[in-house]
Amino acid sequence: MSPTPGPSFRVTALDTYDIRFPTSRELDGSDAMNPDPDYSAAYVVLRTDATDPAGAPDATTGLEGHGFTFTIGRGNDVQVAAIDALRSHAVGRSVDELCDDPGSLFRDLIGDSQLRWLGPEKGVMHMAIGAVVNAVWDLAAKRARKPLWQLLAEAEPEWLVRQVDFRYITDALTPEEALELLRRGKEGADERRARLLERGYPAYTTSPGWLGYGDEKLTRLAAQAVADGFRQIKLKVGADLADDVRRCRVARSVVGPDIRMAVDANQRWNVDEAIRWVKALAEFEPYWIEEPTSPDDVLGHATIRKAVGPVKVATGEHVQNRIVFKQLLQAGSLDVLQIDAARVGGVNENLAILLLAAKFGVPVCPHAGGVGLCELVQHLSMFDYVALTGTTEDRVIEYVDHLHDHFLDPVVIREGHYTAPTAPGFSATMRPESIAQYTFPGGTFWAADLDRKDGQAA
Amino acid sequence: MSPTPGPSFRVTALDTYDIRFPTSRELDGSDAMNPDPDYSAAYVVLRTDATDPAGAPDATTGLEGHGFTFTIGRGNDVQVAAIDALRSHAVGRSVDELCDDPGSLFRDLIGDSQLRWLGPEKGVMHMAIGAVVNAVWDLAAKRARKPLWQLLAEAEPEWLVRQVDFRYITDALTPEEALELLRRGKEGADERRARLLERGYPAYTTSPGWLGYGDEKLTRLAAQAVADGFRQIKLKVGADLADDVRRCRVARSVVGPDIRMAVDANQRWNVDEAIRWVKALAEFEPYWIEEPTSPDDVLGHATIRKAVGPVKVATGEHVQNRIVFKQLLQAGSLDVLQIDAARVGGVNENLAILLLAAKFGVPVCPHAGGVGLCELVQHLSMFDYVALTGTTEDRVIEYVDHLHDHFLDPVVIREGHYTAPTAPGFSATMRPESIAQYTFPGGTFWAADLDRKDGQAA
Repeated sequence: MSPTPGPSFRVTALDTYDIRFPTSRELDGSDAMNPDPDYSAAYVVLRTDATDPAGAPDATTGLEGHGFTFTIGRGNDVQVAAIDALRSHAVGRSVDELCDDPGSLFRDLIGDSQLRWLGPEKGVMHMAIGAVVNAVWDLAAKRARKPLWQLLAEAEPEWLVRQVDFRYITDALTPEEALELLRRGKEGADERRARLLERGYPAYTTSPGWLGYGDEKLTRLAAQAVADGFRQIKLKVGADLADDVRRCRVARSVVGPDIRMAVDANQRWNVDEAIRWVKALAEFEPYWIEEPTSPDDVLGHATIRKAVGPVKVATGEHVQNRIVFKQLLQAGSLDVLQIDAARVGGVNENLAILLLAAKFGVPVCPHAGGVGLCELVQHLSMFDYVALTGTTEDRVIEYVDHLHDHFLDPVVIREGHYTAPTAPGFSATMRPESIAQYTFPGGTFWAADLDRKDGQAA
Repeated sequence: MSPTPGPSFRVTALDTYDIRFPTSRELDGSDAMNPDPDYSAAYVVLRTDATDPAGAPDATTGLEGHGFTFTIGRGNDVQVAAIDALRSHAVGRSVDELCDDPGSLFRDLIGDSQLRWLGPEKGVMHMAIGAVVNAVWDLAAKRARKPLWQLLAEAEPEWLVRQVDFRYITDALTPEEALELLRRGKEGADERRARLLERGYPAYTTSPGWLGYGDEKLTRLAAQAVADGFRQIKLKVGADLADDVRRCRVARSVVGPDIRMAVDANQRWNVDEAIRWVKALAEFEPYWIEEPTSPDDVLGHATIRKAVGPVKVATGEHVQNRIVFKQLLQAGSLDVLQIDAARVGGVNENLAILLLAAKFGVPVCPHAGGVGLCELVQHLSMFDYVALTGTTEDRVIEYVDHLHDHFLDPVVIREGHYTAPTAPGFSATMRPESIAQYTFPGGTFWAADLDRKDGQAA
């Protein structure tokens, strides 16, 4: 006699939301390429008929997986349309099978040959895949009643290797090498987990340095950052060299010589221009130059890096996939690799990128900010520390203090460190009232905004 | 007294259409990565209130510009949504200003910082920009009453240089170098134009070699290709090595030693796999190996090229933008550069890519086929011949004999050559009855197909 089968829970719906915050009104997030971003999320909820282990006995909804792509306003509707195009791959799938092997959906999405034509593995369609894949990992971690970093850190190396797509990267990293890295990562993991829970993971802050802020605000926020315990700040540069010289001087004089000061050009320059500009800022001892040129330019970054040392070269928030990261590492283009939780194909592809970085010995300092990127990416760095590279040396997660209140499990920063999340999941769940308010264009905020504009026009 | 202003014509609408052809039913277009494509177009029409110089006196519509993105089925709706997101940039613009400087809209679209976040300059959003930009060039050529290749070939070098965005490529090509190349291209252009009109531009054909075709069909179509005057054919490979060996043997025995036989793996392999596989096919003397691995892998292509010579390495149909092409040239990754008319940011970006190829002395052999790609890309090669590189040596445009009848000005192949178009425009205009029939899902073909399926299910 076979055992009675358990309940066969399914994904019952994939729901999407176009959520936009009016951040451009305060010039939060302004930089040399993005003068007026409205931080937005193309948001996805995988609904299921599975019991939510954290739900109250009278819970009316099943277990859910939440994920999103971060955008900066216009085009968020296109991103939502791309996530909608993935619906048929997700709805109807077994919750148990998805949670046992999130890579199964990842492989199906990456392998849909008709959708692949729209990339391949880049841009709108790839970010949509990332949003859905991250929602599956949120579901899996909630079902396991663990924060995602812990689920990953406790997973068997063999299982983690099976979550990775090695296509196009075997010339830099084989499955056997990945397995070896993960097995070594297990040594001392328990001790590091205890240390992580006690001290957190180091952060740096970009809040003082937005390009649209005046010197007074820069001074005040830079001093505040040091007082708050951050050991690194970051300034946006690249629009005007004289301004950048002045702002770097102001910031350096406020934070003193011992605080690391990174600068970020947001892809503003050509290769020769980048070299010239960074050399002109060298007297202020920038720790790294971030996104000096196009994220597609592997060889350009290598040229820049050779020319601007000891200033380090950092990039990654716009790097489209593991294949470009592979080459940035092969060509020696990077001192610092900046993963983004929601640009590539979700946790599965970020596992490949973390493994590549570990193989090449390049520290990962994630990009964050935007909407919910801090909430997501902390899990990946914490896994990397506990169960892969085993170190936080020269590693920091970006921190920006915007929009966290819209999440049910917002990041907590203490003395310049991310506190390790303990709630189950990927910290991706937005508050229902925030969704209701900022859904575009029908949410209560935007509807009222439209009424206001109509009133002014009348 | 100022002169009376002329009529100020405007773009009055940007209309989009989701058009899909059921090509998967015959396995046309099948390859190692795309087993069942439904060739599709995310189609855009810029409508204006300008008089159509080719229209009858009682014409009811104004001059129009047509463009499109080619996709292979699912996701064509996402691509349409991306084109829709560009509407506000185009509608209301002056027709004269657009036609005098198509780059003005190109720069605005590429420069929209919020939309740029969705790439940058890659994938769905970038292809949408290409479709709209190409529609502007169609409009400009129709208004000038010239086929696009002729408009480009007759343009002043200074004007062409202003159509190019040099951001991120100045380390490989400066505006001054581009100007010099174009000035040299003018020498002898009249003579070459006459020769082009007389003989056409060399083509090769992929029609025999689709992976889903049996040996009998391959034999028949390969013999037909030679009889039709083609000097090069292409076979899809990469799914099964024993099959590929057999098919290459069959094809080579049919066409003999003097016809070039290219093979195309459609990105199927990792780097080491590509090298192994191509070496196993070397006895059949393939002329080039196309898309041996990911189009993102600049360094991988360089490694493969070093290993598989004298077999040439070709790629480009999925290369996302001028920045990746620049690196493919810088790293010596390519023997043959394959532009695609509708993958990058339209004519403006393809001008940059043609100039880069000319600078590095690498022949351009465009990708075509799909829906309307032959119609578009012939114009770019013909411009390149008449007014840039001045040669067709080792240059061929791909030709596939599908779906041409849906266009008002379809390509004409004679003795293995593309005949130079003489009708004004970019040959991009689809027949209204084809649009009505194949619009998805409401067009007459798809509606009837749905009825048929409903009938079967009942």
